[in-house]
Amino acid sequence: MKIDGVSHRTIWPTTDGAVEVIDQTLLPHRFAVRRLETLEDVAQAISTMVVRGAPLIGATAAWGMAIAMRADPSDAALDAAHGRLLRTRPTAVNLRWALDRMRARLAPLAPADRAAAARHEAASICDEDVAVCEAIGEHGSTLIAQRHRQTGGTVNVLTHCNAGWLATVDWGTALAPIYKAHDAGIPVHVWVDETRPRNQGASLTAYELGAHGVSHTVIADNVGGHLMQHGRVDMCIVGTDRTTRRGDVCNKIGTYLKALAAHANGVPFHVALPHSTIDWTIEDGVREIPIEERDATELTHMTGRLPDGSLATVEIVAPGSPAANYAFDVTPAHLVTSLVTERGICPATAEGLAGLFPARGG
Amino acid sequence: MKIDGVSHRTIWPTTDGAVEVIDQTLLPHRFAVRRLETLEDVAQAISTMVVRGAPLIGATAAWGMAIAMRADPSDAALDAAHGRLLRTRPTAVNLRWALDRMRARLAPLAPADRAAAARHEAASICDEDVAVCEAIGEHGSTLIAQRHRQTGGTVNVLTHCNAGWLATVDWGTALAPIYKAHDAGIPVHVWVDETRPRNQGASLTAYELGAHGVSHTVIADNVGGHLMQHGRVDMCIVGTDRTTRRGDVCNKIGTYLKALAAHANGVPFHVALPHSTIDWTIEDGVREIPIEERDATELTHMTGRLPDGSLATVEIVAPGSPAANYAFDVTPAHLVTSLVTERGICPATAEGLAGLFPARGG
Repeated sequence: MKIDGVSHRTIWPTTDGAVEVIDQTLLPHRFAVRRLETLEDVAQAISTMVVRGAPLIGATAAWGMAIAMRADPSDAALDAAHGRLLRTRPTAVNLRWALDRMRARLAPLAPADRAAAARHEAASICDEDVAVCEAIGEHGSTLIAQRHRQTGGTVNVLTHCNAGWLATVDWGTALAPIYKAHDAGIPVHVWVDETRPRNQGASLTAYELGAHGVSHTVIADNVGGHLMQHGRVDMCIVGTDRTTRRGDVCNKIGTYLKALAAHANGVPFHVALPHSTIDWTIEDGVREIPIEERDATELTHMTGRLPDGSLATVEIVAPGSPAANYAFDVTPAHLVTSLVTERGICPATAEGLAGLFPARGG
Repeated sequence: MKIDGVSHRTIWPTTDGAVEVIDQTLLPHRFAVRRLETLEDVAQAISTMVVRGAPLIGATAAWGMAIAMRADPSDAALDAAHGRLLRTRPTAVNLRWALDRMRARLAPLAPADRAAAARHEAASICDEDVAVCEAIGEHGSTLIAQRHRQTGGTVNVLTHCNAGWLATVDWGTALAPIYKAHDAGIPVHVWVDETRPRNQGASLTAYELGAHGVSHTVIADNVGGHLMQHGRVDMCIVGTDRTTRRGDVCNKIGTYLKALAAHANGVPFHVALPHSTIDWTIEDGVREIPIEERDATELTHMTGRLPDGSLATVEIVAPGSPAANYAFDVTPAHLVTSLVTERGICPATAEGLAGLFPARGG
């Protein structure tokens, strides 16, 4: 998508074997590119959320494997790189999906052939992600267009966290349908959940919607229920970091609360996802998905701009008070109206997913 | 309650006709007392949330009337003071309750007698608030004690915003049962919702629980549903700024989302209130209660401590992105397990409230 009129992806290789990414910890305050040269650079970029968003985490990990193979293409290095990268974030399943795909592609090759093949495979994963997200956008935009035909007015979409192009290689998942609808001339307005504690909504989603010219309003995470009670939300669209075979959805903490409010108020709750977020091995998301606990300072401290434009981090919690930071929650499938995938839209059921992905779901 | 071993109320008169309050906009970073000398000082203190919390707003407004009567005890000044103070905050009903009580007491008197009577009446409102809150604490603590007898373990209570002693003259409403249970030796732990956008949980509730020695953990507002899904919340207790005659509850924005999660997960959802928050004139809270919209800068900017201990305000939202700031929402009565009042505990129904308050509810 475009920033100041220039098209960007979130990650791209350099000609000298490294990879560059947009440093998302500095957005929306600064647009800066970070160069990743070593496996450890890549692992740190994922765990510190320089890059984040399930699809982009997978793509970045794939490039981490390529960088590792350039330094040492041995079997031992291949396994070590897979293991190191897999430990960076525990919840998103795309990470494992991308790492397993890279290892399966590289392990049978002679070590001398691995570096080049790894770069090719990582590039393929990125290109496929772009195509998949654009297809999600095409399918999802029909839901927005349909609502617009019903009401004749602006379609108000509530989203949580950032499942936009910054969470993927391009287009996004939850925001792709919004970009497609907007570009097609359908009037759409987005309620952007701030998304505490890391504020990905207020910083990243607001930033990218603003850069693309999509009408939006930032709200506290507490507000969505009130808006839905008063008929001011036409639909919710969110992303997912892991989706079970029956359609339970693990996404950024707080998603579950919005799904409950949508269900209570008759508001459709759609989840947009590439097939790589589906974990076919599990059924019950609440019981089976490990929920990452992150450092409490993400909640107790907040970074922003001072009046002079410089950045500062302030402590906002009462001194000495403990804090806990759970990063994800699980929305049970019965609260999800539909799953929007690159192959089309289906109900959030085992049958629905199996119908779209018969090879895996059958 | 105590701060550093010293008992405080949140508001007290001075010997020279003014009133002093704890400046809650500076907590938890600084403990500072603010002196209010004029009607306008009092009105500003309420609208800028130097004092906040429905019961304390009422008590402060009562002192504002007393200060106004000292300057000018005429009928015109009485009406003007009532009108000026009523415009400070639109949602809480205690404000009108306290102002109407003051005017009813003062209007029949000769102007020369009003200043002294006003001080006496404002002091009575404060003393009654303390007694009412302590009674709420006694009744509500039985719910915590009962749960402790069932499980034998620590009782985990989730609360939203600040309905502690800082929201009242002393004791609090939602936190009064927790203080009573804690003081009686019942092990209790409080999940403290941060409560965006003004962070009354992270700043005020965490501060006062910590000062009193009550175990607690600050969490993002997004977390409560996840905790309830996993059995880590025994009950919710929140306050209310306005309660309808059938038991709909208008409280800090986001309360409704927690009530939905509690209902979905079989967690009792209790609301603590003095009778002065009951608006007997209305039935349907969602339709009838005006929801205050506050300045968007409360969401877009955040004040906290820099590493050197000084305070700074940083901007946290993407530049140019609009923001909206709804301050309250309404939780329908069917999501409320019980109302905890100074007269006892009742179901959140018209019959329940009428049973406890037959003179008003009948």
